[in-house]
Amino acid sequence: MSLSGELFLGFERRATNHTFHALDAVHGRPLSPAFSAAGEAEIEAACALAWSAFAPYRAKPLEERAAFLESIATHILAQGEELVRRAHEETGLPEARLSGERARTVGQLRLLAAELRAGEWLGLRVDPALPQRQPAPRPDIRQRRIALGPVAVFGASNFPLAFSVAGGDSAAALAAGCPIVVKGHPAHPGTSEWVAKAIVEAARETGMPPGVLSLLNGPDTALGAALAADPRIRAIAFTGSRAGGLALMSVAAQRRAPIPVYAEMSSVNPVVLMPAALTTRAASLAREFITSLTLGVGQFCTNPGLILAIEGKGLDEFLEIARAAVVELAPAVMLTPGIHRNFEQAVGRMAAEGAVKLLARGLEPGAPHCGRAALFSVSARSLLAEPRLAEEMFGPASVVVRCAERGEVLEVLEHLEGQLTVTLQMEEGDLAFAQALLPAMERLAGRLIVNGWPTGVEVSHAMVHGGPFPATSDGRSTSVGTLAIDRFLRPVCYQGFSDALLPEELRAAQLDRRPHRLDGERRPGDAR
Amino acid sequence: MSLSGELFLGFERRATNHTFHALDAVHGRPLSPAFSAAGEAEIEAACALAWSAFAPYRAKPLEERAAFLESIATHILAQGEELVRRAHEETGLPEARLSGERARTVGQLRLLAAELRAGEWLGLRVDPALPQRQPAPRPDIRQRRIALGPVAVFGASNFPLAFSVAGGDSAAALAAGCPIVVKGHPAHPGTSEWVAKAIVEAARETGMPPGVLSLLNGPDTALGAALAADPRIRAIAFTGSRAGGLALMSVAAQRRAPIPVYAEMSSVNPVVLMPAALTTRAASLAREFITSLTLGVGQFCTNPGLILAIEGKGLDEFLEIARAAVVELAPAVMLTPGIHRNFEQAVGRMAAEGAVKLLARGLEPGAPHCGRAALFSVSARSLLAEPRLAEEMFGPASVVVRCAERGEVLEVLEHLEGQLTVTLQMEEGDLAFAQALLPAMERLAGRLIVNGWPTGVEVSHAMVHGGPFPATSDGRSTSVGTLAIDRFLRPVCYQGFSDALLPEELRAAQLDRRPHRLDGERRPGDAR
Repeated sequence: MSLSGELFLGFERRATNHTFHALDAVHGRPLSPAFSAAGEAEIEAACALAWSAFAPYRAKPLEERAAFLESIATHILAQGEELVRRAHEETGLPEARLSGERARTVGQLRLLAAELRAGEWLGLRVDPALPQRQPAPRPDIRQRRIALGPVAVFGASNFPLAFSVAGGDSAAALAAGCPIVVKGHPAHPGTSEWVAKAIVEAARETGMPPGVLSLLNGPDTALGAALAADPRIRAIAFTGSRAGGLALMSVAAQRRAPIPVYAEMSSVNPVVLMPAALTTRAASLAREFITSLTLGVGQFCTNPGLILAIEGKGLDEFLEIARAAVVELAPAVMLTPGIHRNFEQAVGRMAAEGAVKLLARGLEPGAPHCGRAALFSVSARSLLAEPRLAEEMFGPASVVVRCAERGEVLEVLEHLEGQLTVTLQMEEGDLAFAQALLPAMERLAGRLIVNGWPTGVEVSHAMVHGGPFPATSDGRSTSVGTLAIDRFLRPVCYQGFSDALLPEELRAAQLDRRPHRLDGERRPGDAR
Repeated sequence: MSLSGELFLGFERRATNHTFHALDAVHGRPLSPAFSAAGEAEIEAACALAWSAFAPYRAKPLEERAAFLESIATHILAQGEELVRRAHEETGLPEARLSGERARTVGQLRLLAAELRAGEWLGLRVDPALPQRQPAPRPDIRQRRIALGPVAVFGASNFPLAFSVAGGDSAAALAAGCPIVVKGHPAHPGTSEWVAKAIVEAARETGMPPGVLSLLNGPDTALGAALAADPRIRAIAFTGSRAGGLALMSVAAQRRAPIPVYAEMSSVNPVVLMPAALTTRAASLAREFITSLTLGVGQFCTNPGLILAIEGKGLDEFLEIARAAVVELAPAVMLTPGIHRNFEQAVGRMAAEGAVKLLARGLEPGAPHCGRAALFSVSARSLLAEPRLAEEMFGPASVVVRCAERGEVLEVLEHLEGQLTVTLQMEEGDLAFAQALLPAMERLAGRLIVNGWPTGVEVSHAMVHGGPFPATSDGRSTSVGTLAIDRFLRPVCYQGFSDALLPEELRAAQLDRRPHRLDGERRPGDAR
């Protein structure tokens, strides 16, 4: 297997005159080959292909679409360790972590294939005709959900497999029946090419139309904006910076026909160390915190960037152990030089805040682009006065907020911007306090955690990886788990249709196979 | 019962110095009393009240919230014919129609109360803990959906009861657990006051917090924009003009924290007269068309404004009968002088188009503000060349599109902007043609109808009253039927929670009462 550096326009490959290189994350050296950057002609071709694939792709039987997703998983696994090695070179993430991420990626594809077959996402509803009803008869009305149309998927820098070319957004869009045009992240174009190959092989093998995937690469943000503006693109899925997400939201809102944007942008994932928990296990909390903080060099959207606790002996102990751990932390290479630079700037700005105390930094790096952990503290009153002190520093940095009393914990939770997660570390004695915080936590975040840490997102049915703005652009959704399919669907109803004209899943002979509502009453379906 | 003209700030009433009058729709004379217009202070007070009501209101047991909705219905009915008479004076709509609309309004509230109890909308999902799983255990994860926050509801001119103060949007938002701030339509402030009274009486009776409803009136569009910009408002529901909807979308996108906008804006609701249907029943199709076209003086968002058919004897017959019917149609008073003026301007612009033929107009009106029906025809090729010929004329006007052959019918459906509905009038012999059109119809509209007319929207579980932009601002939703609740919800998940800390509906003892998914498997729930 070797990389060509060409783009994917459906099943075709194309080279362009404008090229760029991936950089070796550890040494900053260009990696071969040169990658072609997409221009206007490639965006046009990819969108035209995606549009032409939309009707045939969404019309494929669910079983065939499910087999396609499973085949992608198989082809990714078949690429073996070469894929992991290339991803390691491009991102600096350890191979063990990338193997785990590959397992998650494959698991997502398979879970969504199973969900596709189960058909819950179809949202089937039937209100039978009432021909005798007075004053007017009711016609037969049936509802299902259908795909929105081609989706532009933006690969994320921090998940080169699980939120990139065949990542969670792609799997959900493909499951829903939407062709995808992926804007690959320029930091890992080789990884993207491997994975796009796997998708194309799977599409050929399972008889999917060519335009079901295109992969456009390029180092400039103009590429993403142009793709998002194309009238054939009907939804956007993005994981990245707040600036990037806001730019896409602006493009989408200014289109002649606006489209949904699912941008996962920024979060500091507050963790409240409750009084009884701090009393009984300050030391272990500190150790767990450091593990979560430094996982993946802090480059997770669920990194614990804000710790809330009430002043006292327990907090003092927690801080002392955390501080001692941070100063001995070895720095590790970050995903890109740009991410490292932004991290250092964010840490520098935080350290320069008068109200903020720098408690500890990790060891001096001996190599370029290495993230050096940072731990700060600030009073709740100062944080409330300066909301910017709660802004994300993407990397291994966290701010401990010292609260004078319980009311201040609640006040901070009520004043924070929207988050992906909020966590309570608690014991039974903290129950009443936890109950008092719960309504504010629900308003604040999409995932509420007790006695865990926010890093590590389960891919399952009940997971919500999402949250109110600016954690995401659309707090009504999740980008992880089976509910993620919902983002790419819209309901359609069929009134007065004969059985022969109805879509297959709404016909009399098929209906009972899948979960549905009959005159509002829930039926589980018998083909799960 | 008498009207005071004061605003509702929760349970309190307030008069302001700036007032306006409703106009008698038939004579254009001001109706008493004078109505207070809301200013900045009233917007501030209403939003503060709504925000303070949000936590207690959404925490109410579902049974109590359902009882509140049902009590609103009871109080509306208790107002008797006075309410209908006032609505008639303000809108010019016949009392019989308004009685029917009241029945629909009451029916919506009761249906949503029943849906609230059934709990399908909660979206309950449970993934139980897997403590033995390798390489890492899975924590217990549970999901439910919660209310977004206070919703700004904009009353519609054409449904003074069913899409106004206690209309479909209000019922759905209240069912979801969202307090509402209603911006009453200035054409029927007296009707709004009656209905707001009914809501306040119901809220007092069932122990709901005061801020669950406020009613702000005013003649200026600035009021709506200011309300939509308030940071405590978390979603917008609007039914009205495209200009109005676009303005609200713009306000919402420019907020510091953008919010969802559900605006139902414009639609011409294409109806295809299929060849076999035209052959067998052109005359009855023409009569049914005229009935649908003139229902409510054409002031329905589902008015059939575009008829597609293939040239031939059947179409000639249809047109002759329709033309003969239109020239004898008596004009009827429209909702407001402004709507009448806009209608006449739209008809005038259409008549001035070189490619368009004016086939017939209704009788000359003998009174002001009366809508005079209009029937046009145009070739498919001309329509495809000039998309503005397919723009909505809000009122009793329709354009018949003459297609040379079947391919042109498909081409028109593929090029139209998003619609609320698309209809086929067909016979068995048209099945293959219908199947060929279906994918384009699904992409075009939210509701597909066979052998019915688009006017008349069933309030049920399977209904979709929505569609791609610009029919609505968000084609992923419906504003009619039980699925309308979904617009005001977001998913939240609870990871590692003890039973005592979980929300009641996710606790072990409660879960089986309601429909839910257990590890992905659908369970119907036993308390329906």
